[in-house]
Amino acid sequence: MTPGNDSLTYRQAGVDLDAAERAKRAFAPLLAAASDERTLTGLGAFGGLYSVPGGLDRPVLAASADGVGTKLKVAFLAGRHDTIGQDLVNHCVNDILVQGARPLFFLDYLATGQLDEGVAAEVVGGVARACRENGCALLGGETAEMPDFYAAGEYDLAGFVVGVVERDRIVDGSRARPGDRLIGLRSSGLHTNGYTLARAIVFDRMGLGAADPFPGEDATAAEVLLRVHRSYLPMTLPLLEDGLVRGMAHVTGGGIEGNLPRALPDGAGARIDCGSWRPPNVFRRLARAGRVAPREMYRVFNMGVGMILVVAPEDEEAVLGAVGGEGWTMGEVVAGEGARLAGIGAEGGDSDG
Amino acid sequence: MTPGNDSLTYRQAGVDLDAAERAKRAFAPLLAAASDERTLTGLGAFGGLYSVPGGLDRPVLAASADGVGTKLKVAFLAGRHDTIGQDLVNHCVNDILVQGARPLFFLDYLATGQLDEGVAAEVVGGVARACRENGCALLGGETAEMPDFYAAGEYDLAGFVVGVVERDRIVDGSRARPGDRLIGLRSSGLHTNGYTLARAIVFDRMGLGAADPFPGEDATAAEVLLRVHRSYLPMTLPLLEDGLVRGMAHVTGGGIEGNLPRALPDGAGARIDCGSWRPPNVFRRLARAGRVAPREMYRVFNMGVGMILVVAPEDEEAVLGAVGGEGWTMGEVVAGEGARLAGIGAEGGDSDG
Repeated sequence: MTPGNDSLTYRQAGVDLDAAERAKRAFAPLLAAASDERTLTGLGAFGGLYSVPGGLDRPVLAASADGVGTKLKVAFLAGRHDTIGQDLVNHCVNDILVQGARPLFFLDYLATGQLDEGVAAEVVGGVARACRENGCALLGGETAEMPDFYAAGEYDLAGFVVGVVERDRIVDGSRARPGDRLIGLRSSGLHTNGYTLARAIVFDRMGLGAADPFPGEDATAAEVLLRVHRSYLPMTLPLLEDGLVRGMAHVTGGGIEGNLPRALPDGAGARIDCGSWRPPNVFRRLARAGRVAPREMYRVFNMGVGMILVVAPEDEEAVLGAVGGEGWTMGEVVAGEGARLAGIGAEGGDSDG
Repeated sequence: MTPGNDSLTYRQAGVDLDAAERAKRAFAPLLAAASDERTLTGLGAFGGLYSVPGGLDRPVLAASADGVGTKLKVAFLAGRHDTIGQDLVNHCVNDILVQGARPLFFLDYLATGQLDEGVAAEVVGGVARACRENGCALLGGETAEMPDFYAAGEYDLAGFVVGVVERDRIVDGSRARPGDRLIGLRSSGLHTNGYTLARAIVFDRMGLGAADPFPGEDATAAEVLLRVHRSYLPMTLPLLEDGLVRGMAHVTGGGIEGNLPRALPDGAGARIDCGSWRPPNVFRRLARAGRVAPREMYRVFNMGVGMILVVAPEDEEAVLGAVGGEGWTMGEVVAGEGARLAGIGAEGGDSDG
């Protein structure tokens, strides 16, 4: 790639430090708009500085790192880069929310083969917007230009959130008891899981293009697949503050079975009534077109349930009232281990759209 | 990629949830060994929980995100995956150290096309080892399997560190004055910057293989290029605790000129005497074989200086004594802006090895 005997520069080798500098400067107003009164640094600092909030007796930090997986491939196909940052932030926020924590700040990592300043600004713009929506500061991040690593026009995106929770308000499922109700909260779509399988089905099996109408929806394939991973912070923070939540599971990779047990103590399992809700159209279409077995569907996808709350029987009505039409009772805690899905397949691969 | 009408599974589409689960379990002892008494969660939690240390009046959190860039390509070539995690952790630790912060905990993000459990365990093992060496907890992380994203055998790696500093001990350069001394601390090699250019020179121009001896070194090309990014925590924490450091710059992308000004207040610049040290062999060989202009060398590489301390004249001797043979006075703070490199090129592209 660099034969001959000429004088070499970093730029000839594939890295443009000036473009990186320009992109960084474009991020400055985004960071400034997503800062708060506890943010002590602006752009250009080596690290971000953030005051620990006062007024907490025994503050515990909660942290999580995550990516958005191959949902990115759909963004590339659609040429749409402004929502993937929201997916990232909301996913991370949900992952510490289930421990009772509210987010303080966020950092992102954006890696690309050759930096496109416009795309980078769109991506980070989405990150910043979601930070504001979740009331957390965008404290910094890293933009890496790595030639030969990523295909032209592609990038990877990871994020990292830090939140805080009062020690005696940590939600860890330890108070959950058999008989407790499981309240499912509606997901907004595939969120950020199962995209490798979903893309194979939608673009190969169904033969759809990104801009084609998706069957059974008033939206294109890209629009359906890019629906933003929902943040459950606004809906559940008041419930957490009122002490109404004994356990909480974010339904991500591994589905209900893979995630709900993490919110329950040893010796407690869950019985899920799969007839208590109908998986939304996108999941039914994926199951049918991919001839995916029902159990596999529930293991790979959220099937319409983005978050599960474990609630004492006496609080069931209050919680259902607070979440309005967004939640329903989908099962209960039982003695045992694991999550048992009862009635699975009643909405399986052959149901109609 | 998935023609026909057969029943599809996630695994056929390219994601093996069982392998991911096995890899996660292999990480458990690594996380356990890199936890401390303030770590409240183990593996399997959605987020990691960490108690805010007591005994601080006004604790400020310092956070940084980073990757290791295309140094990874050298690790792939050499088939050596146990040190790249150390590069990552030490880089991040240095980035908050320059603000006076000591690390509390770390999270990693490992993304790959197809998960190789052995490689993942080596990478995360290096991360965990470096966390222990820096006295910080490995609180969690994400391992993402993203088919079609990464070439076979390749992966990307990013990390996030959170540290703490007492508010009135933040190091931000504001106390720096003209006449202050600049103490350079020896780097251990290229650290994690300039690898796209270095690889082009070493593997294309010089025509070396990973296992070939590197000229002027008792080591192979891979060994020279994989030398671990040094953590300056052990050497400088005592100096920070004694209040001897007015400013501190981590020499990463952009070199001395790109980073030192971030450690100085408005109206203050730096004069660097490039004759005060001889860039190590690897930099001289890169300059010569790539015919890289001296200014470009100093912009892309650390040239043997990994960290720069800004120190009051009256503390110069104490600091030099404390860092022993690892540091030297390389210049001073002057009125003005930016970092001026005097005597650059005396050790330019045509000096011998």
